[in-house]
Amino acid sequence: MKDQFYQYIQNLQDQICKGLEAVDGRAKFREDLWERPEGGGGRTRVIENGTVFEKGGVNISAVHGKLPEAMQKLFNVGEADFFACGLSLVLHPKNPMVPTVHANWRYFEMYDENKNVIQQWFGGGQDLTPYYLFEEDAIHFHQTCKTACNKDNPEFYPKYKKQCDAYFWNSHRNEARGIGGLFFDYCKATDAMSMQDWYNFVTEVGDSFLEAYVPIVEKRKDLSYTAENRTWQEIRRGRYVEFNLVHDKGTLFGLKTNGRIESILMSLPPHVQWVYDHHPEKGSEEEKLLKVLEKPIDWL
Amino acid sequence: MKDQFYQYIQNLQDQICKGLEAVDGRAKFREDLWERPEGGGGRTRVIENGTVFEKGGVNISAVHGKLPEAMQKLFNVGEADFFACGLSLVLHPKNPMVPTVHANWRYFEMYDENKNVIQQWFGGGQDLTPYYLFEEDAIHFHQTCKTACNKDNPEFYPKYKKQCDAYFWNSHRNEARGIGGLFFDYCKATDAMSMQDWYNFVTEVGDSFLEAYVPIVEKRKDLSYTAENRTWQEIRRGRYVEFNLVHDKGTLFGLKTNGRIESILMSLPPHVQWVYDHHPEKGSEEEKLLKVLEKPIDWL
Repeated sequence: MKDQFYQYIQNLQDQICKGLEAVDGRAKFREDLWERPEGGGGRTRVIENGTVFEKGGVNISAVHGKLPEAMQKLFNVGEADFFACGLSLVLHPKNPMVPTVHANWRYFEMYDENKNVIQQWFGGGQDLTPYYLFEEDAIHFHQTCKTACNKDNPEFYPKYKKQCDAYFWNSHRNEARGIGGLFFDYCKATDAMSMQDWYNFVTEVGDSFLEAYVPIVEKRKDLSYTAENRTWQEIRRGRYVEFNLVHDKGTLFGLKTNGRIESILMSLPPHVQWVYDHHPEKGSEEEKLLKVLEKPIDWL
Repeated sequence: MKDQFYQYIQNLQDQICKGLEAVDGRAKFREDLWERPEGGGGRTRVIENGTVFEKGGVNISAVHGKLPEAMQKLFNVGEADFFACGLSLVLHPKNPMVPTVHANWRYFEMYDENKNVIQQWFGGGQDLTPYYLFEEDAIHFHQTCKTACNKDNPEFYPKYKKQCDAYFWNSHRNEARGIGGLFFDYCKATDAMSMQDWYNFVTEVGDSFLEAYVPIVEKRKDLSYTAENRTWQEIRRGRYVEFNLVHDKGTLFGLKTNGRIESILMSLPPHVQWVYDHHPEKGSEEEKLLKVLEKPIDWL
C-alpha cells in the first residue's frame, strides 16, 4: 500500500503542477529536493510571482524511522517505527476574486518490533478560502467534492464536509477559515472498507482536485479589482496565517518535530496585513463574506 | 499591592503614550475601553499610520474572577479566584532602520475560599527586535536595562537578560526573535525580596522604557531606506508573527481563554511578507543581522 500510494502522489504532484502552470501561463514551479536526517525526504515545488498565483506550493514527502516523541503522544502509543507520505498544497492567487485553496492527501503506517504493520490509515481533504464570495464557485467546489465521494459512499460527502467545517474553524475569531470542502482522518480498515477501498476513495478525491479548483480560477482570474479589494484580501490572509500557526495540527506538528520549515511554511501567504479592529462596511461584499463564515453553510 | 500596581500601570500607560506621540509628531493613540464578561476589562490604545509608528499598541488590563481552566492547568492548581493586571506594548515603526520593541509588566494574585491571597507574583520585561543592526543601539538598550536592574540587585540584569534570550527564541527557525533585553516571571516574595521590593524593581524597569527606546527611535527615524530594506523588514516581521502565534505563551493563553482578540493581536505587524526560502546575500547587512540572531550576544 505504501508504495502504491507514494507512486500515486508522485504522479499527482506532476499532474497538478502541470495543470496549474498551464493556468498561470507564466510562472513555473521551482523544485527543491530535501532529505530528512532521520529517514526519508521530500520534493517541494513552489511557484511565486506568477500571473495568476502569487505564491503556492505543491509538496510531497515520504518519511520514516523511529516515531518522534510528539507523535507517540499524539497517537497515544510507545516507541515504534513509522512511515508517512503525503501531498500537501496551498495556492495563494494574486487576484482577490480568486480563492485560496488547500489540499492534502496522506498515508501513515506503524510497525511492531518484527516490522509487521500494526496500524495504517489515510487522511486528507481539500478546502476553499475565498476573499469575495461567488456562490456558484462554492457550489461547484462542493459539488465536485460530493461527486468524488459518491463514487464510493453517499455518506462520505456529508460526513467529511462536516468534519472540514469543524476542523478549519478559527475558534479565537469565532469564524470559519473559508467555505470548507472535505476533511477526513484515521481512515482505517473496517469490515465495510478495506485499505484498498480507502485508497480508491482518497485517490478519487485527489483526482478531483484540478476539476474542483481550476474552473473557478479560470472564471475569476481576469476580473478587475481595486486596491481596496487587495487590502481586504491581505487582511483575510492574516486570518489564514492565524489558523495555520495557532490551530493547524499538521503545521504545529511539523514545527515541533523538526520538519523542513520552508516546506511546511510555504502555506503562508506572500503579502499579509493586520489592521487593528477592522470591520467591513455594512452591506458590502466584504461583510457578505464574513456572514457566510459565521456558520457552516450547506452549499448543495 | 494590586491597587498600587494598577495605579502605576495606568500612569505609565499615559506617560508612554504621551512620549510616543511626541516622537511620532502626527499620529495619536486611539483608545478602546473594553469589559470582560467574567470580570474586569481593559484600556487598549492603538496607534496606526503615524509618521514614525506604522502600528502599535500600549494596552492595560485588570481582570478578575474564577481562574479559567487553562490557567489552572498552567499553574497546576485547582479552582480559585484570581486577579491579574498588566501593561503590554508593541511598536512597529515604519522605517526599517528603527527596531520594533515589546514590553510587558504584570502582577498576578490568587485567593483561597476566604479571599485570602495565597499566591502573588510579578512578571514582565522589555526586548528589542531590529531589522538592521546598529550595535550602539543594542548596547544603549541593554545598558538602560542594566542600569534599571542595578538599582535593586546587580545579579538581576545577567539573570533576566539570559531568561529573555531563552524565552524569545524561535525554536522552529533556530534563531532569536531579536536582540533581547529583560524577561522575568513568577517574582514572588522571599527572605531577600518582599513584594514591595519586587514592586520597586518592576516599576524601575517600567520607568526605564522610554529612556531605553526613544533615543534609538530619534536617532534612526529619519534615515533613508530603500524598497529592498522595506521588503527585508516585512519578511522579518513574518518571524515576529511566527513567534507570537506559535511560541508566545501570553498570546496563546489569551487566544485560548477568550481574551479580547483585537487587544491581544495588536502585537501583529501591519504589513508582512512570507517569501519561500529567503536568504540574504553574503556579506550584506541583512546577513549580519541573521548572524547576530544565531546565538545570544553579551552586549555590555
